[in-house]
Amino acid sequence: MNQSFFLYIILQLYLLIAPCNISAQEDYKLWLQYKKIQDNKIASNYQSKIYRIYPLGNSETIQAATKELQQGISGLLDRKIALQQSTNTENMLILGNKSSLNEAILKNIKNEFDIINEEGYIIKSIQLKNKKHLLITGKTDIGVLYGVFNFLKLLQTNQSIENLAITDAPKINVRILNHWDNLNGTIERGYAGSSLWNWHKLPEFIDQRYIDYARANASIGINGTVLNNVNASALILTPQYLEKVEALANTFRPYGIKVYLTARFSAPIEIGGLKTADPYDTEVINWWEEKAKEIYLRIPDFGGFLVKANSEGQPGPQNYGRNHVDGANMLADAVAPFGGIVMWRAFVYSEHDVNDRAKQAYSEFVPYDGQFKKNVILQVKNGAIDFQPREPFHPMFGAMPKTPLMMEFQITQEYLGFSSHLVYLPKLFQETLESDTYQKGKGTTVVKIIDGSLNNHKITGIAGVANIGNDINWTGHPFAQANWYGFGRQAWNPYLDSETIAEDWLRMTFSNEENFIKPVKEMMLESREAIVNYMTPLGLHHIMDTGHHYGPGPWVSTLSRPEWNPVYYHKADTKGIGFDRSKTGSNATAQYAAELAKIFDNTASCPEKDLLWFHHLSWDYKLKNGETLWNGLALKYQEGVNQVEKMQTTWDQMKNYLDETRFKEVQMLLNIQRKEAKWWRDACLLYFQQFSGKELPKGVEKPTQTLNYFQSLKFPFAPGN
Amino acid sequence: MNQSFFLYIILQLYLLIAPCNISAQEDYKLWLQYKKIQDNKIASNYQSKIYRIYPLGNSETIQAATKELQQGISGLLDRKIALQQSTNTENMLILGNKSSLNEAILKNIKNEFDIINEEGYIIKSIQLKNKKHLLITGKTDIGVLYGVFNFLKLLQTNQSIENLAITDAPKINVRILNHWDNLNGTIERGYAGSSLWNWHKLPEFIDQRYIDYARANASIGINGTVLNNVNASALILTPQYLEKVEALANTFRPYGIKVYLTARFSAPIEIGGLKTADPYDTEVINWWEEKAKEIYLRIPDFGGFLVKANSEGQPGPQNYGRNHVDGANMLADAVAPFGGIVMWRAFVYSEHDVNDRAKQAYSEFVPYDGQFKKNVILQVKNGAIDFQPREPFHPMFGAMPKTPLMMEFQITQEYLGFSSHLVYLPKLFQETLESDTYQKGKGTTVVKIIDGSLNNHKITGIAGVANIGNDINWTGHPFAQANWYGFGRQAWNPYLDSETIAEDWLRMTFSNEENFIKPVKEMMLESREAIVNYMTPLGLHHIMDTGHHYGPGPWVSTLSRPEWNPVYYHKADTKGIGFDRSKTGSNATAQYAAELAKIFDNTASCPEKDLLWFHHLSWDYKLKNGETLWNGLALKYQEGVNQVEKMQTTWDQMKNYLDETRFKEVQMLLNIQRKEAKWWRDACLLYFQQFSGKELPKGVEKPTQTLNYFQSLKFPFAPGN
Repeated sequence: MNQSFFLYIILQLYLLIAPCNISAQEDYKLWLQYKKIQDNKIASNYQSKIYRIYPLGNSETIQAATKELQQGISGLLDRKIALQQSTNTENMLILGNKSSLNEAILKNIKNEFDIINEEGYIIKSIQLKNKKHLLITGKTDIGVLYGVFNFLKLLQTNQSIENLAITDAPKINVRILNHWDNLNGTIERGYAGSSLWNWHKLPEFIDQRYIDYARANASIGINGTVLNNVNASALILTPQYLEKVEALANTFRPYGIKVYLTARFSAPIEIGGLKTADPYDTEVINWWEEKAKEIYLRIPDFGGFLVKANSEGQPGPQNYGRNHVDGANMLADAVAPFGGIVMWRAFVYSEHDVNDRAKQAYSEFVPYDGQFKKNVILQVKNGAIDFQPREPFHPMFGAMPKTPLMMEFQITQEYLGFSSHLVYLPKLFQETLESDTYQKGKGTTVVKIIDGSLNNHKITGIAGVANIGNDINWTGHPFAQANWYGFGRQAWNPYLDSETIAEDWLRMTFSNEENFIKPVKEMMLESREAIVNYMTPLGLHHIMDTGHHYGPGPWVSTLSRPEWNPVYYHKADTKGIGFDRSKTGSNATAQYAAELAKIFDNTASCPEKDLLWFHHLSWDYKLKNGETLWNGLALKYQEGVNQVEKMQTTWDQMKNYLDETRFKEVQMLLNIQRKEAKWWRDACLLYFQQFSGKELPKGVEKPTQTLNYFQSLKFPFAPGN
Repeated sequence: MNQSFFLYIILQLYLLIAPCNISAQEDYKLWLQYKKIQDNKIASNYQSKIYRIYPLGNSETIQAATKELQQGISGLLDRKIALQQSTNTENMLILGNKSSLNEAILKNIKNEFDIINEEGYIIKSIQLKNKKHLLITGKTDIGVLYGVFNFLKLLQTNQSIENLAITDAPKINVRILNHWDNLNGTIERGYAGSSLWNWHKLPEFIDQRYIDYARANASIGINGTVLNNVNASALILTPQYLEKVEALANTFRPYGIKVYLTARFSAPIEIGGLKTADPYDTEVINWWEEKAKEIYLRIPDFGGFLVKANSEGQPGPQNYGRNHVDGANMLADAVAPFGGIVMWRAFVYSEHDVNDRAKQAYSEFVPYDGQFKKNVILQVKNGAIDFQPREPFHPMFGAMPKTPLMMEFQITQEYLGFSSHLVYLPKLFQETLESDTYQKGKGTTVVKIIDGSLNNHKITGIAGVANIGNDINWTGHPFAQANWYGFGRQAWNPYLDSETIAEDWLRMTFSNEENFIKPVKEMMLESREAIVNYMTPLGLHHIMDTGHHYGPGPWVSTLSRPEWNPVYYHKADTKGIGFDRSKTGSNATAQYAAELAKIFDNTASCPEKDLLWFHHLSWDYKLKNGETLWNGLALKYQEGVNQVEKMQTTWDQMKNYLDETRFKEVQMLLNIQRKEAKWWRDACLLYFQQFSGKELPKGVEKPTQTLNYFQSLKFPFAPGN
């Protein structure tokens, strides 16, 4: 009896603590939760300042903006909010573009419209006949929509809405997601389920998810999306698929999102029935012109093409003895009459080129500087290898002043633990953007090249390889949503600090409680350094297992192309470890500005985070902290594991600040991350130990398994491959 | 001004009508919506009858049952419901298994425990010390859980809960889903996204979806799941994957769901390192015994194996000169010590067998009757070909009295419009179950063979090939959820009328409004006949396009195996159309009981719905309604289209009875269905017209395109292939 009563108490506690509505809804809603504001004082202040909505205009975009305000406010303030077409009562929330504003309203605006560009917005407290109101405006309806989302952000993050005078505008024109989605529904390097695009049911079936995708993107300022994989199927350009693309474009248009497609260079052969895709061939040129016309007839605001050509087996102009300029310019001419652009990827390297892979893109493209048509922009990955946990910035940035270059970041975590590892990427993106190229003296940061300000380029862009799939939570990991969010915010304003973004995201996604924000923000900001430590510390890179890139594989050495083998990158031997890219080695450093090359060349001035990227050093090389390279390396791996364990401790204390589903999800995922961090540490150290011949230093835990065990692991069905 | 005011009115109307909370939540919740009861009278009656919950016992299953009651009641009655460990107050909801009930409670039970089996339940209004209470009990905790779900169903469907005295128990032992899910996340014949099982993140990451999957299944009585494809990878049997299977088994166990796996017959070679998989080989026998031990050590209640052997290229005992009995019995011996079973599929046909494909499974298996071990059950598809919109029941049913046979239905709509067509399958399932085999005289229906009653078999089973994927709505079509639901209900009680099931499902999923239930139920009940009409009327079958089975392909004739070609099945020529399976033809009719064979053999007695299944008839053959076969066929195709259009009219009127998201989804999908119904009609009639040489009769619409056009259509990325 006593015991059963005890059991009862346990059961009752369990059942009372467990929330009744376990649901996937929070996961799905991203940072647009619009949950009731918990702080009553703040909520009633908002209540008193927002009476009704007064929308000016009736475009689909204004309708979307109005609906978003209704949805947002009704959630945040837990009350319905009506529309009213007058300012007779105080505290109207007025929204409309510049041309829809009457004289009385315009009198409240000073020079704000001069400050912002076509996509910018103004949020301003105004007075009309001594009555206070709030105005959200911009030069265009899309500007108004951005203003609405940013006004809602103020509420979501519990900021004051008194005496508002906010103006903001994007610093980059093309803020775009690259979906590596295949037509069969799989996603190359996708770790969050399959493709959002249900090609089979399009064009008739418009999934609610497409609209929510557009809402989420618009809320962070993303204005373009490439729907399909850069390793492209030409079929996307057939009428059968263009009809479906058109349906998506129509769905995204009210949210200011333009659709782009990848163009398979050999499409004229594969779907056009031509014998060649030579960019000098008149029939080929005509074919692309006609194809462009066909597309623009369906989608008047089609954005343009993204092209991966002569790269990793993709067809391109070189198949016909032509070059990248020939290929890009032909496509650019086809879309130019309609205002389209061509984003031509610079991600090239050849197995026939014996040079350091890190040098090849620069060598191939820099000589073409100034030769591309005006509507071509080169899309360059942040580093010269391939989306590693850390890379020095790509030497092409700053090296082609006459050519606009856009940044390609990877939001999906191909090399960063897939969707199981919590890694806050805006920290990585910021590091690249802030990197100093020294191309026009100290302070010539990458961001100044990207935003066009340094060389006065009109087309500017930042692309992110999407981490979005059809998982209920979109990104496979609740915290991977922050990478999508942060990418958008940085594409809008690449000067923004990643800490600000993290805080906004946490408040919008989870809670405004300071006891939650502070530790979890710290955890996010540290997470990128943690993964560098437990995967590739001190400048190591590309030592992942091969093909799927899941887990450690520093031992892999048997692939046909030398530069696909991890051993190519770490070059560990009994003498030491690292890739000598200094002037005594591959001389990749010479691709940087002279001042910077000097810094990288010298082990004393080379940042230790990039040490083994640029230098092959003895196991006994002394690091700045006095440790030998071997010990320092081992301690870094251990530090990475420790950091993950610290993340777990932090997270375990957050239970009361969020819903049970997401709390548990992150908890389970951190468990995987710790397990895999240890796997990385143990496998890499055991492997490198064969060369160093040294004991693990004090403080580094004993390996959990043997090297043989780690080398025996096989993952034939690892995702995204 | 006037115009802008008009626009404003329009906009305001639009915005006020549009609900503020468009969400995917309803889609996700299936028939467990637990939405607040709209009828106040009913709600307050329930309120007065349910005070608190009194759970007896503390097993995971009782915890799950209690939590479900809390979640359900708090939603339906819109109030929190507490637990209380006493009956001092009236109207307690008491739940617990028989052994947990005290004398006073047991006094309220008459013979109910004798009526039900181990999985049955009792829901009863009882009195304790003159206080009224409600009791939910069963012999086992799982019985209690089933009782809880059925009690919630009473509330969900607004039925009275006064003077309850309900007993119910399943009539089938093994009520099981077959997932044709591959380890790479794709699903063979899956049209609702990719696999639910995230093998990569298992065992650590337990998706909330796994739990909701178990809840949904338990709510309809499903008690088993085969996790992987019958076209199996042996890797599922390696420790790397068994660890993941174990995690799923642990998750499903509280909900009474046993895990089963498919066994690739050649696994001893592929993952065991043996040179053979010969079932007579001692090493092979040992390997399977050890493998079974290994599995049961992890999963003590592992259900057993499902095997597709020597079928469509899968390995099997015949590769070693052995037969199905040898193969099945070897595996049966391996799992027998642990209580496991082997479900051996009878879906076999050979390209080397010139006989009518419809005859082959019977010919191959019937001679083995009585030779299988006690824990083997043969899994037989409902018809002799392959999950067609309509097939006569499989002649094996009733032909193997000494062998337990289980039914294999296909819930996923491989041949029935994928997840774009609204087709209510329980109607199809019921037709098969009610079919009279005449094996022991008139009235020997298939269901009596399946439930073991006819031949006194102890193992009984019904399997359904799942239509579940990771789409937010699980099944790709809101109404495809009804097929999962209905399958479960019919597996529990195969005598249940599909109309009852449709009504329950509609009430639980959408609304209890009679104005909604009546027309929509009618629409569901008619939907199966509609698809038969616009795809394969009058007994036509397997004339789908090849490989993916999407859309019509009656012209396909070039595949390597004759029985893979649609022309093999319809045999249309200038003389007529249909497959002569009567005694003048392939004599497949002889596989049925003599009395039934006679009915089928004679065109006058053969049901018209099966006419061209059994007979090749002249285009001028007179149907019962006086029409020629050609005219009748054409009119049937037209009728199918008309039926879909009627479904659209019905649905358009339902806008106010459900959420906007699901309303629109079904609307868009019905549009696809109509488009494709017309495609089927036009393509098939144009093709057959080449042979009949006759005009389309009055009432049949003109084809929308030419035959050439239809034949030119290609769908390289059709899903599920």
